[in-house]
Amino acid sequence: MRVGFVGLGIMGRPMALNLLKAGHEVTVWARRQASMAPLIDAGAQGADSPAAVASVAEVVFSMVADAPDVRAVLLGSQGVVQSKRPGLVAVDMSTIPPAAAKSIGADLAAQGVTFLDAPVSGGEVGAIAGTLSIMVGGDQAAFDKVQPLFACMGKNVVYIGETGAGQVAKAANQILTGVGVLAVAEAMAFAKKNGTDPAKVREALLGGFAGSKILENHGQRMIDRNFKPGFKSWMHEKDMNIVMQTAHDLGLYLPASAATAQMYKAMVGSGLGEEDSIAVLKLLEQLSGQAG
Amino acid sequence: MRVGFVGLGIMGRPMALNLLKAGHEVTVWARRQASMAPLIDAGAQGADSPAAVASVAEVVFSMVADAPDVRAVLLGSQGVVQSKRPGLVAVDMSTIPPAAAKSIGADLAAQGVTFLDAPVSGGEVGAIAGTLSIMVGGDQAAFDKVQPLFACMGKNVVYIGETGAGQVAKAANQILTGVGVLAVAEAMAFAKKNGTDPAKVREALLGGFAGSKILENHGQRMIDRNFKPGFKSWMHEKDMNIVMQTAHDLGLYLPASAATAQMYKAMVGSGLGEEDSIAVLKLLEQLSGQAG
Repeated sequence: MRVGFVGLGIMGRPMALNLLKAGHEVTVWARRQASMAPLIDAGAQGADSPAAVASVAEVVFSMVADAPDVRAVLLGSQGVVQSKRPGLVAVDMSTIPPAAAKSIGADLAAQGVTFLDAPVSGGEVGAIAGTLSIMVGGDQAAFDKVQPLFACMGKNVVYIGETGAGQVAKAANQILTGVGVLAVAEAMAFAKKNGTDPAKVREALLGGFAGSKILENHGQRMIDRNFKPGFKSWMHEKDMNIVMQTAHDLGLYLPASAATAQMYKAMVGSGLGEEDSIAVLKLLEQLSGQAG
Repeated sequence: MRVGFVGLGIMGRPMALNLLKAGHEVTVWARRQASMAPLIDAGAQGADSPAAVASVAEVVFSMVADAPDVRAVLLGSQGVVQSKRPGLVAVDMSTIPPAAAKSIGADLAAQGVTFLDAPVSGGEVGAIAGTLSIMVGGDQAAFDKVQPLFACMGKNVVYIGETGAGQVAKAANQILTGVGVLAVAEAMAFAKKNGTDPAKVREALLGGFAGSKILENHGQRMIDRNFKPGFKSWMHEKDMNIVMQTAHDLGLYLPASAATAQMYKAMVGSGLGEEDSIAVLKLLEQLSGQAG
């Protein structure tokens, strides 16, 4: 299929490469020329603007930083919508607030472009391996059309519901992973401060109701004190901010998410923003007068 | 083996029955005569006091409500220690603070009784099925001796470390399950308030890093709105209180545990104490002005 890809950062680059590898004709655009080079070397076409990408594609993917960027590349003066291409489907895979996805979807629909929100989880490793989880909101027929392309980038691709539902699922994912990482860090810090071996505690707990992917993977990395990202703290801070902003707008009371959002904020503030979110363990230790 | 069992409540009764079924000679005591009847019907001997139980047993298990009860049945005037039986091993399977386990273990050692702290997880269902997780602290040789008896009651039996280490692992387990249930409830409430199907969100998230036993089991029960215990909220409140008291004593900063402990306290205060801990979803909904 003739597809476009806009935004070629840590996530977008390997995702676009996986579309290329699967034999699709890929046209790309990125804000920085340098980001486009590896894709062009691999056989992609480069374009001058998101609008130029869309003019030669049936489906355009975007993977950028936040809602204003998504709005700019899709609806701006050089945006995808300017291509006026009939039947165009715009698929945004960035993580943005559900309300922003709904608003962008409505504005695109008004100009004849079908929109899917399709945020991912699984990180850089999943993007490279093509094993991302992809959570999709929007028109079901458009989802069916794009499904073979999603299958090049992800393994667990789930249609959630109407526009914005993909972002709702992603926000719920960030609640569970954000709170989950903090809970595992608290359990590990608790064991250590009690003079008990955290590795033994992890082993004992994995088999029961406390068992989780986070205890298994992130728990082991905490024991190994391997704080290399992975998923940077400042990115989880940004995602928890989406959760709390949405909760505020809906009048929703989320105490564990609120405590977690504040912890990631404190990680950024105390210089741990570039480390993996599991470095929240270090902050707990610092705030408990415990050497690392 | 000749074993004793003290405390025959919801957990103790099926655990003692499993020892009987495995062919052990079991002598029992419970505060209420009525609690002993089903065990005596099944072939156990009844005794007049914990001391009388210990006088005819090599290993005595206790499963009672909290630390003062454990101290009373093991070290009180009618307690296990009064049997003066040489080589006696006392195994407490109640959930109490690590510091209380250490203190009780030291007091028993001073009177020649070997102590293991061996709290469990898995609830009434696990107790009946003999599939409890058992986390053990204390003397390793005593653990090896008791291991065949643990195997009658549990599946995942792990020696953690010195006296109190079993309780540390149990407290860590309650951090992960307590915070975990609240996190899943927040994710489900978030999805619903956004107009998205929580069942779809659960399905999408199970395959990724957010996947956990709690999302799988408790998440499904939240979707089914099945709040029948299971594990009652007031019991999780009690366990989180152990976590927070221990954290206070050690100067340990645990923000997600603190938020969770307060939520379970609010459940008890608002009349949800007898419901399963997953009814924390109802409290979130009430506090968000959302009908149940």
